[in-house]
Amino acid sequence: MTQHGIEHLFTDTVRDTMGSGVYGDWRSIQNADAVPLAFGFPYPESLPNGELVSAAESLLAAEPDRALQYGGGDRAAGLRDVIVDRARDRGIDCSTDAIHLTNGATRAIDTVCRVFLEPGDEVVVEAPTFMGALGIFRNHGATVTGVDVDEEGLDVDALAEDLAARAERGAPGPKLVYTIPDFQNPTGVTMATDRRELLLDLAETHDFVVLEDDPYGRLRYDGVDRPPLKALDSADRTVRINTFSKTIAPGVRTGWIVADERTAAQFDRIDAGGEPSFTRGLIDTYCADGRLDRAVSRLCEGYEERRDRMLASLDAYMPPDVGWSEPSGGFFVWIEFPDGTDTEAMLPEAIDAGVTYLPGSFFYAGDDGDRFARLSFSHAAPAAIEDGIEALARTVSDGVPSTDGRLGRGR
Amino acid sequence: MTQHGIEHLFTDTVRDTMGSGVYGDWRSIQNADAVPLAFGFPYPESLPNGELVSAAESLLAAEPDRALQYGGGDRAAGLRDVIVDRARDRGIDCSTDAIHLTNGATRAIDTVCRVFLEPGDEVVVEAPTFMGALGIFRNHGATVTGVDVDEEGLDVDALAEDLAARAERGAPGPKLVYTIPDFQNPTGVTMATDRRELLLDLAETHDFVVLEDDPYGRLRYDGVDRPPLKALDSADRTVRINTFSKTIAPGVRTGWIVADERTAAQFDRIDAGGEPSFTRGLIDTYCADGRLDRAVSRLCEGYEERRDRMLASLDAYMPPDVGWSEPSGGFFVWIEFPDGTDTEAMLPEAIDAGVTYLPGSFFYAGDDGDRFARLSFSHAAPAAIEDGIEALARTVSDGVPSTDGRLGRGR
Repeated sequence: MTQHGIEHLFTDTVRDTMGSGVYGDWRSIQNADAVPLAFGFPYPESLPNGELVSAAESLLAAEPDRALQYGGGDRAAGLRDVIVDRARDRGIDCSTDAIHLTNGATRAIDTVCRVFLEPGDEVVVEAPTFMGALGIFRNHGATVTGVDVDEEGLDVDALAEDLAARAERGAPGPKLVYTIPDFQNPTGVTMATDRRELLLDLAETHDFVVLEDDPYGRLRYDGVDRPPLKALDSADRTVRINTFSKTIAPGVRTGWIVADERTAAQFDRIDAGGEPSFTRGLIDTYCADGRLDRAVSRLCEGYEERRDRMLASLDAYMPPDVGWSEPSGGFFVWIEFPDGTDTEAMLPEAIDAGVTYLPGSFFYAGDDGDRFARLSFSHAAPAAIEDGIEALARTVSDGVPSTDGRLGRGR
Repeated sequence: MTQHGIEHLFTDTVRDTMGSGVYGDWRSIQNADAVPLAFGFPYPESLPNGELVSAAESLLAAEPDRALQYGGGDRAAGLRDVIVDRARDRGIDCSTDAIHLTNGATRAIDTVCRVFLEPGDEVVVEAPTFMGALGIFRNHGATVTGVDVDEEGLDVDALAEDLAARAERGAPGPKLVYTIPDFQNPTGVTMATDRRELLLDLAETHDFVVLEDDPYGRLRYDGVDRPPLKALDSADRTVRINTFSKTIAPGVRTGWIVADERTAAQFDRIDAGGEPSFTRGLIDTYCADGRLDRAVSRLCEGYEERRDRMLASLDAYMPPDVGWSEPSGGFFVWIEFPDGTDTEAMLPEAIDAGVTYLPGSFFYAGDDGDRFARLSFSHAAPAAIEDGIEALARTVSDGVPSTDGRLGRGR
């Protein structure tokens, strides 16, 4: 009976999923001496250093006895009102009781999984999708199924066909469908409104939860907003996740979930304790007097310039057999190289040439995406973005390792 | 098949435990106009408002491009070294890979549960124990069993007897034994060293995890330190939780777990994402140049004065048939009223008289603790503590509602 250590006491799900990681070794890409097109980091000049120091001073002067105390003061409590207002701006009418605050959007995905997913439950994801979400679903022992994405977002017709065929033969459907409808990670595409409506219909017919992850929704550089799934949903099927990481700063790591009030109460219970009241008060203070809206406007200018520079550089430098998405917002361009390209194998060469990216395979649950890569225009300066794209084009044109391991031409 | 809403899609464990809450309605006690002896809040003057503003300025000046970025800069990374040093001070030799950072100690308990507890697994707790932990164990569908606490802490001999009897008849044992060995919440008692050693032996023999929660360990006002369980444990059976909430401020809500490196890696995976890099950098910056040690010294002076005032006031005002613990550190005194007292029923009267406390029943998994209450000396000013104890003594002496609902004498 006596055993050294406690690993054998891990839960079945932990032991079954131990091999995988939510984030991989590719974090080392971050330290490469190259133009950083790999990660969805905001550009350094956008970080509101001075404003947050001012907000801290103002918060602690206004609430010296409460800002750092358990529960925080009125400012920390007021953050829910800020979020209700932001939801209303997007056409979502909800009360503060419908909001569960989290330590960022990834933790929010995890909390949703804890309330809905049993090991073995199926989650449908966009193929490709946010790799952090794939890791979280795996942690919960879920079976992950991908449905293709095209220029209009998730191919909801294909999902409908699949679900109808399953229903026909009595096969079970998914518990959860996970989507990033606006400026999707990694493709940059936005889901068409009629697809959103169809997805909600499918949720009712096939009895699943729609998990809407919208970190980029306010970062639109052209075109007009589409209604969030949560705003279109009259049946309380949608659980919506959002974050301040992209509009204030990643380091404040505060996100939230909007759901029906009864579901939000369970998120509150399952995720109880650990409220960072200082950070919440800080964000509420920062958001006062329209500062968040002004910050978002400035961010949109900065990101639009970067996106434009990236798209123009792709046009200027890439060989003709390379294609890419043209996002109206968000952080990412999805690039497609010719058949036979293996972007994971090509990455060290690209880094040598002076640019980083994330290989497409990172964004698929299964074995897929070798020809693709995600380029982030959020992090580097415009001129560096051009240098990076030029370096990437050079890498591709110089000949890239193909999937069978030999060097081949990029086209 | 079509159903409105998504509640029916909750997991079995969520549905089985929906009725309970981690924290109850008693949060309203916080707003009573009375001397606050209910909650383990640090006293307002101890909150390091100015120091945290300075730390924020210094951090953002030193790392303008990284402090608010994903992952943070060297300061956020350095927090693990601060924690390794603190562990070494308590006799625990570990690497940074053995540390998992969390958003406070309660979230740390939850993370440990996620890695070890299947629904139906048994957790042994001290009776009484921290109510937040009881809520978390319930959330995981665990069966919670209490073992008595006396002046020397958890009655490990009683646990040994129970486990031996179970082994004899082939009954299963617990997966986890949860203990707060130093200045226990709510009793204030500290576990004897020989009991610590015996508990670790039991963990080996009966194959369970020891969960050591030590939020108060550095707040000792007299006597000598006992070695943490983790320091005595040569078999990697102990998972140790700690927090900066009691030594810096609750609002920064940052805690950590020390375990063997393989177990810590699973905590990292299960709890991935959502790292509040700004807060972590802030704490690391705050802790530089011995500031944390100086802060702890000041806190010990402030808390010792409050503890002494509370104990002296209890001596001066309480009727002779009331007893209480005499803690050497931490935040809490545990008070025992005569048979027939119902501290939950008495609370409204106590609030009318000008004092709050937490009824003993809140700290038991089962139906127990009616005669007891937890008094916190951490929050109120010394003179207010005396007023509060005088008001409580008056309430008790004036006649209190007994458990059968009639008013009776307090003794």
